[in-house]
Amino acid sequence: MNNYFNQRKTCRKFKPEAISLDSIKEMLSDAACAPTTGGMQLYSIIITQKPENRKRLAELHFNQPASQAPLLITFAADFNRFSKWCEQRKAKPGYDNFQSFISAMLDTTIVAQQFNTIAEQKGLGCCYLGTTTYNAPQIAELLKLPHRVVPIVTIAVGLPDDDSIKAERLDANSFIHEEVYCDYTIEDINGIYAGKEALPINRKFVTDNNKETLAQVFTDIRYPQSSNEEFSRIFYKFIEQQGFEFQP
Amino acid sequence: MNNYFNQRKTCRKFKPEAISLDSIKEMLSDAACAPTTGGMQLYSIIITQKPENRKRLAELHFNQPASQAPLLITFAADFNRFSKWCEQRKAKPGYDNFQSFISAMLDTTIVAQQFNTIAEQKGLGCCYLGTTTYNAPQIAELLKLPHRVVPIVTIAVGLPDDDSIKAERLDANSFIHEEVYCDYTIEDINGIYAGKEALPINRKFVTDNNKETLAQVFTDIRYPQSSNEEFSRIFYKFIEQQGFEFQP
Repeated sequence: MNNYFNQRKTCRKFKPEAISLDSIKEMLSDAACAPTTGGMQLYSIIITQKPENRKRLAELHFNQPASQAPLLITFAADFNRFSKWCEQRKAKPGYDNFQSFISAMLDTTIVAQQFNTIAEQKGLGCCYLGTTTYNAPQIAELLKLPHRVVPIVTIAVGLPDDDSIKAERLDANSFIHEEVYCDYTIEDINGIYAGKEALPINRKFVTDNNKETLAQVFTDIRYPQSSNEEFSRIFYKFIEQQGFEFQP
Repeated sequence: MNNYFNQRKTCRKFKPEAISLDSIKEMLSDAACAPTTGGMQLYSIIITQKPENRKRLAELHFNQPASQAPLLITFAADFNRFSKWCEQRKAKPGYDNFQSFISAMLDTTIVAQQFNTIAEQKGLGCCYLGTTTYNAPQIAELLKLPHRVVPIVTIAVGLPDDDSIKAERLDANSFIHEEVYCDYTIEDINGIYAGKEALPINRKFVTDNNKETLAQVFTDIRYPQSSNEEFSRIFYKFIEQQGFEFQP
């Protein structure tokens, strides 16, 4: 049965019209009723609306098309506010570690996704910029994120102005496991990815990039090992620098 | 204006009635239309329904009340399926690193939260068990998660059987920042947490635990430094063991 959830699509091109900040704040307020670790709400949300800041932030997202939206909202894992509260209440915060970062990252992603759902249901177009962690140090500098705050995701928001098609998804049986994980055989993999590989848009990707297989487009061009490793080192170092120790 | 999003509440007590697996699979299928990194769907979802498996999994979640639900659904970051596809398509997967783990963790959290929203809107009760990463090695063993798969969150699901109240949330202005992060003054912190501290249920927490402040309940009892650090080391080691290198 068709519903918002299985018909939604990501928007990558936006009308230039500004979006009312009050309406965005109301959506964020509603989104914040989503689940959060121990009621701690370990996040901060930074709205970028001024043209000069948007321009700079878009650059840090490699100027991907969606980054040209009238509003960019960055969701950051935040143990600064909570720790400050502890310190002012004769309590010693013990959150400068990896597990606490993970809790804050979960809270942050959950509230971001809840906002994405609310905004899309209200007719706005949204697109995650998956590049926030790549340039986390520079983004943190631009947004003046203090110690104990790490940017996790950015969502571009605006009135949709595109004819994007719904992205393809794997059949649910390919990622749902009952009781225990049923590891994939060669035949499973062939079956699971056949639909994706047969799509005209994906076949075009392969040809346009002079590749032999769609998987090579991912490994050689979109998410190559060298970039993944470079961004791993950057993000690892930055998380530590912001005060979360990996192996305390 | 009241709506599902700002009225939702977490359910921690469930009726014993079983939930139809088909309906859950349909909800998960819809949830999977949520945004995902590069269309890669870097997750697997393991449904635990058999009593003996539920019992064991609940133990690994410290038998917290919600873990007694008729259905436990674990969402795991998964680069196994995608990497196997690459390997079968003459492509060399370069995803054994921290940044790739982060992408998979984002995908996993997003699909989990989308499922949570769909299930709650259909009248089911849901509760995140925030303890999945604490006992990740044992949970992975129980669910037979292979290399390149790491459990991230578990959601307990069932028909609600409780009179839980909506959890309190901070005023949105306390976590929304315009253009740049506006760091918190002592007065800000006092104002932000005053409502939370004044709540009868939270005052009772303080008294019941013989503490002086609510913050001490968090730092000394609920999320103490020693546990956070122990679970940091466990999860760090486990992520590496599953094949994601932190500083490649």
